[in-house]
Amino acid sequence: MATVREASYELLRAHGLTTVFGNPGSTELPFLAGFPDDFRYVLGLQEAVVVGMADGHAQATGRPALVNLHTAPGVGNAMGAIFNAFENKSPLVITAGQQVRAMMTMEALLTDPGPTALPRPFVKWSYEPPRAQDVPAALARAFHLAQLPPCGPVFVSVPMDDWSAEADEPAARQVTGRVTTGRAGPDPAALRELAGRLENASNPLLVAGPDVDAAGGWEAAVALAERCRLPVWAPPASGSGRIGFPEGHPSFQGLLPPAIGPLAQTLEGHDLVLVVGAPVFTYYPYIPGPVLPEGTSLMLVTSDPDEAARAPAGDAIVADVALALEALVGLVPQADRPPPDPRPAPDPPPDSDPISAQAAMAALGEASSVA
Amino acid sequence: MATVREASYELLRAHGLTTVFGNPGSTELPFLAGFPDDFRYVLGLQEAVVVGMADGHAQATGRPALVNLHTAPGVGNAMGAIFNAFENKSPLVITAGQQVRAMMTMEALLTDPGPTALPRPFVKWSYEPPRAQDVPAALARAFHLAQLPPCGPVFVSVPMDDWSAEADEPAARQVTGRVTTGRAGPDPAALRELAGRLENASNPLLVAGPDVDAAGGWEAAVALAERCRLPVWAPPASGSGRIGFPEGHPSFQGLLPPAIGPLAQTLEGHDLVLVVGAPVFTYYPYIPGPVLPEGTSLMLVTSDPDEAARAPAGDAIVADVALALEALVGLVPQADRPPPDPRPAPDPPPDSDPISAQAAMAALGEASSVA
Amino acid sequence: MATVREASYELLRAHGLTTVFGNPGSTELPFLAGFPDDFRYVLGLQEAVVVGMADGHAQATGRPALVNLHTAPGVGNAMGAIFNAFENKSPLVITAGQQVRAMMTMEALLTDPGPTALPRPFVKWSYEPPRAQDVPAALARAFHLAQLPPCGPVFVSVPMDDWSAEADEPAARQVTGRVTTGRAGPDPAALRELAGRLENASNPLLVAGPDVDAAGGWEAAVALAERCRLPVWAPPASGSGRIGFPEGHPSFQGLLPPAIGPLAQTLEGHDLVLVVGAPVFTYYPYIPGPVLPEGTSLMLVTSDPDEAARAPAGDAIVADVALALEALVGLVPQADRPPPDPRPAPDPPPDSDPISAQAAMAALGEASSVA
Amino acid sequence: MATVREASYELLRAHGLTTVFGNPGSTELPFLAGFPDDFRYVLGLQEAVVVGMADGHAQATGRPALVNLHTAPGVGNAMGAIFNAFENKSPLVITAGQQVRAMMTMEALLTDPGPTALPRPFVKWSYEPPRAQDVPAALARAFHLAQLPPCGPVFVSVPMDDWSAEADEPAARQVTGRVTTGRAGPDPAALRELAGRLENASNPLLVAGPDVDAAGGWEAAVALAERCRLPVWAPPASGSGRIGFPEGHPSFQGLLPPAIGPLAQTLEGHDLVLVVGAPVFTYYPYIPGPVLPEGTSLMLVTSDPDEAARAPAGDAIVADVALALEALVGLVPQADRPPPDPRPAPDPPPDSDPISAQAAMAALGEASSVA
Repeated sequence: MATVREASYELLRAHGLTTVFGNPGSTELPFLAGFPDDFRYVLGLQEAVVVGMADGHAQATGRPALVNLHTAPGVGNAMGAIFNAFENKSPLVITAGQQVRAMMTMEALLTDPGPTALPRPFVKWSYEPPRAQDVPAALARAFHLAQLPPCGPVFVSVPMDDWSAEADEPAARQVTGRVTTGRAGPDPAALRELAGRLENASNPLLVAGPDVDAAGGWEAAVALAERCRLPVWAPPASGSGRIGFPEGHPSFQGLLPPAIGPLAQTLEGHDLVLVVGAPVFTYYPYIPGPVLPEGTSLMLVTSDPDEAARAPAGDAIVADVALALEALVGLVPQADRPPPDPRPAPDPPPDSDPISAQAAMAALGEASSVA
Repeated sequence: MATVREASYELLRAHGLTTVFGNPGSTELPFLAGFPDDFRYVLGLQEAVVVGMADGHAQATGRPALVNLHTAPGVGNAMGAIFNAFENKSPLVITAGQQVRAMMTMEALLTDPGPTALPRPFVKWSYEPPRAQDVPAALARAFHLAQLPPCGPVFVSVPMDDWSAEADEPAARQVTGRVTTGRAGPDPAALRELAGRLENASNPLLVAGPDVDAAGGWEAAVALAERCRLPVWAPPASGSGRIGFPEGHPSFQGLLPPAIGPLAQTLEGHDLVLVVGAPVFTYYPYIPGPVLPEGTSLMLVTSDPDEAARAPAGDAIVADVALALEALVGLVPQADRPPPDPRPAPDPPPDSDPISAQAAMAALGEASSVA
Repeated sequence: MATVREASYELLRAHGLTTVFGNPGSTELPFLAGFPDDFRYVLGLQEAVVVGMADGHAQATGRPALVNLHTAPGVGNAMGAIFNAFENKSPLVITAGQQVRAMMTMEALLTDPGPTALPRPFVKWSYEPPRAQDVPAALARAFHLAQLPPCGPVFVSVPMDDWSAEADEPAARQVTGRVTTGRAGPDPAALRELAGRLENASNPLLVAGPDVDAAGGWEAAVALAERCRLPVWAPPASGSGRIGFPEGHPSFQGLLPPAIGPLAQTLEGHDLVLVVGAPVFTYYPYIPGPVLPEGTSLMLVTSDPDEAARAPAGDAIVADVALALEALVGLVPQADRPPPDPRPAPDPPPDSDPISAQAAMAALGEASSVA
Repeated sequence: MATVREASYELLRAHGLTTVFGNPGSTELPFLAGFPDDFRYVLGLQEAVVVGMADGHAQATGRPALVNLHTAPGVGNAMGAIFNAFENKSPLVITAGQQVRAMMTMEALLTDPGPTALPRPFVKWSYEPPRAQDVPAALARAFHLAQLPPCGPVFVSVPMDDWSAEADEPAARQVTGRVTTGRAGPDPAALRELAGRLENASNPLLVAGPDVDAAGGWEAAVALAERCRLPVWAPPASGSGRIGFPEGHPSFQGLLPPAIGPLAQTLEGHDLVLVVGAPVFTYYPYIPGPVLPEGTSLMLVTSDPDEAARAPAGDAIVADVALALEALVGLVPQADRPPPDPRPAPDPPPDSDPISAQAAMAALGEASSVA
């Protein structure tokens, strides 16, 4: 008879989750007993490093990565990095050990008394299976949810005696081979309307964010920029470090400043701003003002409903960024305006960087003692 | 200068939220002071009724409904109905009053000490704005998130002194006219593969759930059933009461039984089961067994990533149900098999209803004292 | 072999929890199968009523009461009343049913997907046992925590298949007979200091709140008032309806007004205010001003650390109110000042009641349309 | 006019919180602007270190320590150490920065979208003030709650523009000088009963845990052991590293083993076990068995209601450990039995340490690959 551990390895294998990033303690040892030869364990000695490696792996491969943490304090140490992964929309399947079930109610050492509450603010789903036999189904649910848009971390707490329990083999088998797909095409009517707005704009502009790269939309973004003769900007400081548009392309204009007033100034003279794959906008110091100049409208294309909902101005379409860009290229005619002027000069030197601590303090009218 | 209340009314008006369902107490009076003539207040005398009315209104109109509850105990009374609205994926913008800001830290009477925690398990977003001036933006964010798929309730707590504060008019104006769209087209590659599976199946079957109706996909479902000669079943007990397929249609076969074993038996002989707009599956009594018969595969089309992730078997596409059905009709040829036999006989009489309490107890091997 | 249900009944019986207040659905039936003859089930047809009855029962008997609710929507309906019980510091052991463990991960009908999150804001502890065998220990932990000061509701979610599982009899037996006591005597040094302040004050005043009654301190409060010649006031609107001091006693002065300004005015001329068994203070409309008049100091005696921590002014001793009053009577000499003047006149008529909605609106400078 | 920062410094000064342990980012700079000369900032370069230092400082001084963390990822990094501080019952007042209020609803960079949820599982209170003017009252409430028993960490999130806002000086002044005391004397009746049980036991035993030291009860514990001729054990692995009894005392017997079976074996022959200042018990590997030998009863004295409630066996008194021990010494007569035999032999060598990972695995019947 298969154990829960064997059924879980089978499930992880079926989803390509054979690389495990972790920093185990004793509550994780039963998971590691008889670790299969085709699995690889990448050890980090502090949890921030472990989750950081997994986050990078997930971003680079475009597929979920598996994380193996120690009970409460181990998960606690990881929370800063899990916040980053959440902001980066990285699909991480995070597991943590837990005391044996029989000693949880008395809170024996290594019990996490509220295992699902700790990671919850920064994961899409947080769960401890109600029986050992449900571990494979919980891992499967976690995997699928992590990689459905908007991607992000998920968390499963596993009591240490679950791994050697006898599996419910039929249930584990049925859940193992599943394929879920959630790349969302844009609403056809909304996209046609957007194409019309692009065609009719006299001086439109494109802001291409990190999710253009994550979605595989780089070529479609270039095609759209060239077809519509769009000057292209990168959004202000984004979390993930991805680049949404080739910075060497003649249409590329630079990085938008990360504050309301200066950013709006940069957009002046453009009647339509199309933002794809980035929030509207990742401000940092608070310099008040209108988000958009008078006479400028904005359309956001994002795969994240929350990004669409919380934008302080402009309309939004929630859809896969690459599918939307590709469809848009097919709907707009070649513009007959001249291509945008190339970017005039290099970025300002770092000592006038508007994202500095001094700028943040100055914006608040504070004198900072930090050099 | 406009007040926060005036700016909020303007925002609600712009989104068609001029009907308010509520049961107010004193913490809601400042919102109601000078209630505009073009707004309507539908009073309910217990919160379950208030939310139930709003839930039905939202489902019938296909648009968000506005709910106005009293601070902590009022929201508490509503939680059962908010759970239902969450299960029904009803877009409700729920507001509640709160003590004045100056007396919250000492927890004066009518303070909700954790206003965002109470509704959180069953709303998509729960918020108390950090300043009075942020109330319009919070309401806007709530509205947009509620109506982006998967739809659902959202919650905003508003301290009672916020309404008469002076608004940040430029910010309120920018957030007022926004339009967000999130009807997701299916991933083209995944849909083509599904069309191929449908074409090649020897005896496929359709399960049409309540979201077919919610999405406006009724006609496409009928067209698909007729084109592919599919027998059609309704899923087991769904929350919202919507019907996903005309029950008088000759292809309609009845309601699937709400337990694993009997349901799988009903699917026997079908090599492909296509479920649209329903979970896989809404079981109620626990009668163990495989979810699917040997040799049967399943594909789910749902607008809810969580439904896709937690299904115990089968593959899934996350997309708007109507867009997916319409696209599918265009991709499959007319089947040359005969139409399904009409439904042989009426439903069994209620005393053998497998969803009864007795059945649930019997499945657990318990003797029930409930008649 | 005993079942979990039998072991649980035995535990409940040992703690006198043989009266069950409930509104069951099918998820609660397995608990009720073979309901013992020495137990009584008090049925309410809406959960607010059920919890309200249990709250009153617990307050009247001074002992925990047992509540039996239906899964998610049932608990949801009860949340308003659970908030009240939490404010009343009523020791309620609240249970709710849940789907069978095998169908929770797929969220079959009647699954509460986050059973411990829903009640958490207003209970002292919220738990779903990790195994059927842990149900008795979870109920025991819930019982003890509910009745240790500050008392309050606790919550245990029980999957419906747990009740008929085989119990871990030795563990259940060990947890059954436990006795826990937490009536806290006051810190001796702090109490001596308070006695000195009382002795040296020229015009001290007593505010006697509902917890005087809950703690059984009525006689000690009267003795202290008479010994120190204290005028006695009732605190502004308290949640539980208990009375902390005999209103017919000649020293009783009336009910303090529920707003900062008027309340402070009432305290004028008193150099020391002793508040026992009530928050400082349960304000309702916001009428700003200093909490205490110039030259007045305040000491609070409360059994609730949070009440002590959040008071906007004054010092505090956390202790059982009756034990503190009794000890205080033994430490202070008979005062030689005359007894306070009797209460001059009856309460103002209701149309000038400062707790009215109009007063709240007027305090905010709003015109209310509510009669 | 004073700023919120000035009023807050005044409050912190009044409570002796002039040493700040922190790792600030830009969201904390406004708090640090004009940092007073009489304050000291102890910088740590990772949050686990920062909280660890503060935890040790609080334990060594017996007074709350102040922690200054960066917004979301900073608090996230600290969560492992905050869990430890919570287990250690260390009174930490933890603050974190937050974006300016005007940019929180749009979630600008450095916004913590759910600032109070992240630390909540492991703090006694988690709060973000509703207005800048409430920061001093929130810090005061946090301070008082942290140091009232059972002590523990508390959390206050402060938007970065709050510090330079104008303070509500009267409110800040009233909250500044407060003194709260919560050392709980034992219930007199329960203590008398315990004294009788001790007097009548034929072979009682004392387990002295870390809270004996924290409460300042070391001398009373020695006096009780000598008066009742008690053999004394230290509890299994406790979190805080405090020692509850002089290990060189002739009555000291060693460290109890951290597993149910072996621990119960160690207690055999003793009819009464008195545990003070420790949980019952901090087990680690799961070796099933009865918690107590046949014929042994147990009484726990703890300052933590939750410890009392969750013990798997025995009765409990919730009270300050030192006050209870001191009172107990006054109630029991000098025993006439001989003093316990001195500890027979040194501890077993580390390779048979029952708390090792191998032992944990062995107890689960697993082969561990970890050396």
